[in-house]
Formats: sequence, structure tokens, C-alpha cells
Amino acid sequence: MDVMAAIEARRAVKTFDPDHVMPEAEIRALMEAATLSPTAFNIQNWRFVLVTDQAVKDAIRAVGWNQAQFSDCSLLVVVCGDLRAHARNPERYWRHAPDAARASIVKMITDYYEADPGARRDEALRSGGMAAQTLMLAAQAMGYDTCPMTGFDFAEVAGIIGLPPDHEIVMAVAVGRGVEPARERSGRIPYSEAVVRERFPSPGSED
Amino acid sequence: MDVMAAIEARRAVKTFDPDHVMPEAEIRALMEAATLSPTAFNIQNWRFVLVTDQAVKDAIRAVGWNQAQFSDCSLLVVVCGDLRAHARNPERYWRHAPDAARASIVKMITDYYEADPGARRDEALRSGGMAAQTLMLAAQAMGYDTCPMTGFDFAEVAGIIGLPPDHEIVMAVAVGRGVEPARERSGRIPYSEAVVRERFPSPGSED
Repeated sequence: MDVMAAIEARRAVKTFDPDHVMPEAEIRALMEAATLSPTAFNIQNWRFVLVTDQAVKDAIRAVGWNQAQFSDCSLLVVVCGDLRAHARNPERYWRHAPDAARASIVKMITDYYEADPGARRDEALRSGGMAAQTLMLAAQAMGYDTCPMTGFDFAEVAGIIGLPPDHEIVMAVAVGRGVEPARERSGRIPYSEAVVRERFPSPGSED
Repeated sequence: MDVMAAIEARRAVKTFDPDHVMPEAEIRALMEAATLSPTAFNIQNWRFVLVTDQAVKDAIRAVGWNQAQFSDCSLLVVVCGDLRAHARNPERYWRHAPDAARASIVKMITDYYEADPGARRDEALRSGGMAAQTLMLAAQAMGYDTCPMTGFDFAEVAGIIGLPPDHEIVMAVAVGRGVEPARERSGRIPYSEAVVRERFPSPGSED
């Protein structure tokens, strides 16, 4: 499927066929694509919890405003960030680089993230966001629909998926066979509000 | 270009043809794609500053560790988040929805974001991350290369682009014609480290 067509076709689908089972080979292909998403310094700080067990999906639905996507999707991916990824033998993230380059980058990684817990969390959100979109577009290309989700109790879901204390949940993505066509887009903002040239207009120039 | 091929081909390119000028129609097509990225409650909280002016690109390079991508790319997109998007007439984000649904969603939007400044910032990072990846894959499909960038002084760049005080910079994406093939991926982590089934292994079960 063409990239532009996938971007256009991707919509937040709310109703999935609860009986569809996603073959393991498709799950693997989808996740291999997701793990090609970029991360700062190549720290690959995303972690993906694949939920297919009905009882687990139901438990997440129970702490997710009873939204049917949680239990009716074929695969629920909880996108997480490992806040200590930068410290888990970072040399391996650059093992194919020349020695001097590797040493230099590992020092930058260590200096930057060790000094700033906020930077670690921000990086988890950025990396997780990019990976979530990769996942959604790859799913679209594979004939699946998706729904990006943040409407759940993060602490409760952390307990359900056994989230380690040095990890953070970024969001979830429901993947499955949509059973209803998406509605019209609900209301896009003007292009000129989303996109500005060179710099934001100064306050005095706003009308 | 096929979605999976674009995901595979996308690499952080560091060397761009400084003489390439990206036609306005291509910039528009790229940004139209980016603005189809999902956001929570459809608040469309991403904002994109398109930098093509050489003096502005050079100024950003000067506060960005002198990285050549900033000045040699054809288009530098500073991906930002509007932390008050939820409060800017949110009815319009759901103008095509039935009245009762719109009222219900607008109340959820207001209650959720007004109560929690941290949630507003997290949402900017998530939305911005998803949009950045849309942008990179769309650029790939258009024959361009990209480089996702966070290695710059955010406060200095905020000044350069006139960032309003209620906005936040998420990251930047350099877009242009790469002049060198990307190197081998520098060191991927094992699939089993990035992807887990149902739940993280409990500490006692780790080897």
C-alpha cells in the first residue's frame, strides 16, 4: 500500500471484529516494522507489550472507560518507554560504528540522560509516538485498522502488564479488523493554523 | 512508495545537497500528509514551523552543535505543540459530530486538560512524535531523505522561531536530498527485548 494512501486511510476505528485472530506471522511483521522507528542516539527506548489474551484485554477495558476497542481488537499494543535504555550497555546501540565514534556517542548518551530524568521521560514519549505511528501505518498496509488510545488508567494498566518501575506507558494502539467504515473526519483545523513559515507570527501582528 | 519499503528505507541522513530547493507544491503535499496524523480527542495540537530561509537555518545550526543537517537540508520542520489547543474553541474539532456527542467530548477535553498541565505537555510530545514519523515516511515516499533531530538548544530555537509561551518544541525534522547512502544500521537490540507478550517478565523470572 502506498504511503500517502495509508496516511489518508488511517482513521481511529472504534468497532472491531472480536472474532478475528491475527496470525502470528502478521504480528511479527507488524512489530518488526515498528522496531525500525527512529530514536534519539539510537537508544531504541520503546518497548511494546502485545496483548492478545482475552482476559487481559478485558481487564484493560475495565480500566479504560469500557471502550470496546480494548477487548474487541485482535492485538492491543501497549507502547511503553524504558527510562533506563540509555544505561543498558549503550555500546551495543553503536556496535557497527567505528570505535572512536562509538565512544564519543556513548559519552553523549550517558552525559545527557544521566543528568536529566525529565529528558529520559520526554524521549520515551517522542520515541513511543513515532513508533505508534509506524505501527498504525504498517497495520494499514497489512489490511488492518487501528485506534490510538490514551483513555485508560495508566497506573492500573501498568499493574496489569507488569510494567517495571523504570518504564513508562506512552499510549496504546488497538489493531484489528474494522467492521464499520470510519465516519467523516470530525473537524480539521485550517492548514494555516497548523503550519507557519519561518516563525510564529508576533503577538502584535495577530488579528 | 510502499509503506513497508518506506519504513525500511527511512534512515537518519546526515548529509544533504545544500543547493536543492524543495518546490512549494511538494512542501504543501508533505505538510498536508503530516496534518493527517492522529491526536487525542482530535485536538490537533501539533504546530509545524517550516524553515527554508538560509539565515534562519544557519542560526539554528549555530545553536545545534553545528550539525550540517540544519543548514544543508531543503526544509527544516520544527515540530511544536500548542499546550492550549484543547481550549481554543474545541467545538470545532468535532463540528461534524452530532450535537450530543460533540458536547460530551468537549466536556471531556476541557475537564481532562484543564486539570493537568503535565497531561497537556505529554500530549504535545505524543502528537508531535506521531506527526514527525508521518512526515518522515511521507518525505521518503516523495523521494526525500530526513533526519529527526533533538540535538539543539530548545530555548534558543524557541527564540529564533518566535515560539509562543504556551507552546512547546517537540523535535525537528530535516528534509532534503541525501547525498550519501545511509550507513548500515548501527546496532539493533534483539526483538525479544523490544517486544514482550501479555506482560513484562516478573523480576524473579529474569535470568
